[in-house]
Amino acid sequence: MNQYNQYKTMLQKAADINYASAVLQWDQETYMPENGASMRARQLATLAGYAHELSTDKHLGVLLNELIGDVKLDGQQQANIRHSLKDYKQRAKYPAAFVEEMSLAISKAFNSWHEAKTKNDFKLFQPDLEKLVDLKLREADLLGYKEHPYDALLDQYEHGLTVAQIKPLFADVRNQLVDFVKQITPMKVDSSFMHLHYPKNEQWDFGMKLLADMGYDFKAGRQDMSSHPFTTNFNSHDVRVTTRIDENNLHEMIWSTIHEGGHALYEQGLLLENYGLPMGEAVSLGIHESQSRLWENNVGRSLNYWKHYYPIIQKIFTSQLGNVDLNTFYKAMNEVKPSFIRTNADELTYHFHIMIRFEIEVQLMEQKVKVSELPELWNALYKEYLGIDVPSVSQGVLQDVHWSHGSLGYFPTYSIGSFYAAQFFASAKKQIPGLENQLATGNYSELLQWLRTNIHVHGKLYSADELCNRITGESLNFKYFMDYAKEKYLGMK
Amino acid sequence: MNQYNQYKTMLQKAADINYASAVLQWDQETYMPENGASMRARQLATLAGYAHELSTDKHLGVLLNELIGDVKLDGQQQANIRHSLKDYKQRAKYPAAFVEEMSLAISKAFNSWHEAKTKNDFKLFQPDLEKLVDLKLREADLLGYKEHPYDALLDQYEHGLTVAQIKPLFADVRNQLVDFVKQITPMKVDSSFMHLHYPKNEQWDFGMKLLADMGYDFKAGRQDMSSHPFTTNFNSHDVRVTTRIDENNLHEMIWSTIHEGGHALYEQGLLLENYGLPMGEAVSLGIHESQSRLWENNVGRSLNYWKHYYPIIQKIFTSQLGNVDLNTFYKAMNEVKPSFIRTNADELTYHFHIMIRFEIEVQLMEQKVKVSELPELWNALYKEYLGIDVPSVSQGVLQDVHWSHGSLGYFPTYSIGSFYAAQFFASAKKQIPGLENQLATGNYSELLQWLRTNIHVHGKLYSADELCNRITGESLNFKYFMDYAKEKYLGMK
Repeated sequence: MNQYNQYKTMLQKAADINYASAVLQWDQETYMPENGASMRARQLATLAGYAHELSTDKHLGVLLNELIGDVKLDGQQQANIRHSLKDYKQRAKYPAAFVEEMSLAISKAFNSWHEAKTKNDFKLFQPDLEKLVDLKLREADLLGYKEHPYDALLDQYEHGLTVAQIKPLFADVRNQLVDFVKQITPMKVDSSFMHLHYPKNEQWDFGMKLLADMGYDFKAGRQDMSSHPFTTNFNSHDVRVTTRIDENNLHEMIWSTIHEGGHALYEQGLLLENYGLPMGEAVSLGIHESQSRLWENNVGRSLNYWKHYYPIIQKIFTSQLGNVDLNTFYKAMNEVKPSFIRTNADELTYHFHIMIRFEIEVQLMEQKVKVSELPELWNALYKEYLGIDVPSVSQGVLQDVHWSHGSLGYFPTYSIGSFYAAQFFASAKKQIPGLENQLATGNYSELLQWLRTNIHVHGKLYSADELCNRITGESLNFKYFMDYAKEKYLGMK
Repeated sequence: MNQYNQYKTMLQKAADINYASAVLQWDQETYMPENGASMRARQLATLAGYAHELSTDKHLGVLLNELIGDVKLDGQQQANIRHSLKDYKQRAKYPAAFVEEMSLAISKAFNSWHEAKTKNDFKLFQPDLEKLVDLKLREADLLGYKEHPYDALLDQYEHGLTVAQIKPLFADVRNQLVDFVKQITPMKVDSSFMHLHYPKNEQWDFGMKLLADMGYDFKAGRQDMSSHPFTTNFNSHDVRVTTRIDENNLHEMIWSTIHEGGHALYEQGLLLENYGLPMGEAVSLGIHESQSRLWENNVGRSLNYWKHYYPIIQKIFTSQLGNVDLNTFYKAMNEVKPSFIRTNADELTYHFHIMIRFEIEVQLMEQKVKVSELPELWNALYKEYLGIDVPSVSQGVLQDVHWSHGSLGYFPTYSIGSFYAAQFFASAKKQIPGLENQLATGNYSELLQWLRTNIHVHGKLYSADELCNRITGESLNFKYFMDYAKEKYLGMK
């Protein structure tokens, strides 16, 4: 076997293990009986051990160092090697003792976060979060960085992203979006009908139709229920989504279904022949989120979308929606209103939630704020950007699971994703003649084809920035999101 | 870590991998979208590779050889070591090249069997089956045997079972059961109501009730649908069953549910503390089958059982069963009638099907019959024992998947299981005062407790024969099955 094939075999074997773990995790979130949890944890740990062994195997390092820059390889193969070598070098920077310490700290922090949130007592979480922040500072040192320790963390989720790049984006959010939201709120809409009783089965069937219409391939995936919606994939021919249904809140199922559907279309669009290789994987979290947000916001929250679907859903829920006209429904689906909880936020104020987390994480990594001061800082920032008084730490600084997982640097990818989505969608509108009309008639095939050709099939061949420039002619620019927001919300009747 | 703990760690790690595979297989049979199959196969192959590495690890061999007979170990620990060393030695007898050759031959044979069955053409399967029989002869030589090459194969499914032991059992079947069936058939019962339309949801709910009433713990398991019913377990706190529902045949769901429920109760009754160790595993296939058959036949097909459930099911399916009395229903559920297909057979003629397969397998291993002669031999034996003319090879020699899997020696465990069940049940009736009355009122807790205490908790501590002697005071004896059959069928009105 030649060296490239040896490399490929090793990577695909690691993929087998990682995807087997993903099946076990999917099962855990969907169908596993409650007593199955304890042994499932050790089964996952054993698989993780094998995946780690494979991905840090010395022979893999030797192969990668010999293959890097090999001109006999084609462009895709060279890109695979580049990415794999970068990943390999990153992993090699972690001493085994550090990995173990981090893993223990995360497991401890996750438990104490859960208890702290339940009991509304930040102090229960504080020491474990302090430990994690300390470990994250050490991790940044291990990984190395040019300008800012936070850059080392950002890079893990969004390769190449830096504090220096994010700051101007959030400066735009602060300077333009905060004022814009003040301008358009409070919105005049009675959205109480969104919280009538919408029976589960009818919601489920409607969501399945939305997924199928988007182009989600049910021969290569399925939808199930879980307490937190997610997308997972075991290869590009088996990409699964979950949703959550609240019978008293129509938002819940609709947005989670379209959002996860967008993630899933990306995974289904990766090429099976690149299984286990970087060319068979998504570019970054930000680009992944751009796909979910494009479908959720730019498509799903548009008037065009509901021109098609409102008559359908109105017919399903006649007693709840029979007397509500399209325009009222559309406004209710898009009500902008500052709130405490990130995951329930509208598509505009959502970014204030992210900005706050970003500012806090930067300060933590600069050691300018102590963990003990976070509740106060959190509440002050919510007052400043959203104009609201946070009622409790459970609904404030403790609301998200991310920090307890040690995932500092993750949050910004959510906003980046929305901003990429707006920029991509602006290009799609220019490049696909009649797109608006297609959307208004429930026809998404050209849009999906456009996403497939421009984004999905490439895997990691281009970086996020390269991809953005290829598609839109420029790097990420907040302007497109702002233009989208203005056109939409100022145009609302 | 002391040596015993090292051994335990290694075995439990192998269990993690094997149970992870089991989750992937369960998913494959229940929820996997159709395009997921190709990559799932390679993921399973990778896991199987790791499991094989672990179970043939030289260090494991060293540990086992040092621990065997270590008097500092307690009885359970010593039994674990004994079993593991036996397994280890067995595995060591297989050269890697042979394992690979067998694996390829099975994969080829499975495909050609499937095609041959579909096309009703034995010739398509014949060369691959010839290859498999040849490999099985070599396998018997590799494993070694005292009297008969078939003994080496039997031993893999039912440790210690030999041709010399089975022959007298099937001689009894031939001498006693064949005549008995002639005596009681044709039975006078119009069972056409069993094939009316029984809607799926109501059947499902009834089956779930049967499982719950048996004592199946839904916190440590779940039921799903699959095309072939099965039981699988990922540890004793996560034991899952599947069932199949035919809306035009009430037999299908009821027998598969109770049967798999019986298997599952055994697995749920194993001790979690023995996870991954022989003491946490079932004795043998025969003893496993005894649990499913005891619930299916001795309990589920009894008049007492239906004294309790018939009023319930009659109320669910009023239009189908409203005019059918208990006795007619009971007779229909127990109709004895020679037929072609093993899996649809009644509890008596079932053993003729097994006896035929046993005789054929023995002759194959004795090289007294050629594979090409099997269809003819098959049809002749069906004529002799069941008095019927087999209409086609699809409904004859090609009906079962087992041979295409290379599973020669497996079939006898089905009959052995039923005979053990009858013998165990006879003891249970003696040892549990009022058992008949409990069964007639839907109370199975004492019976389950009896099975737990006498069989389930022990894992592999006792051999099948030891267990049988401990419980019933003698070794396996066909008499109990024959007594059961006579009492039941001669007592029918």
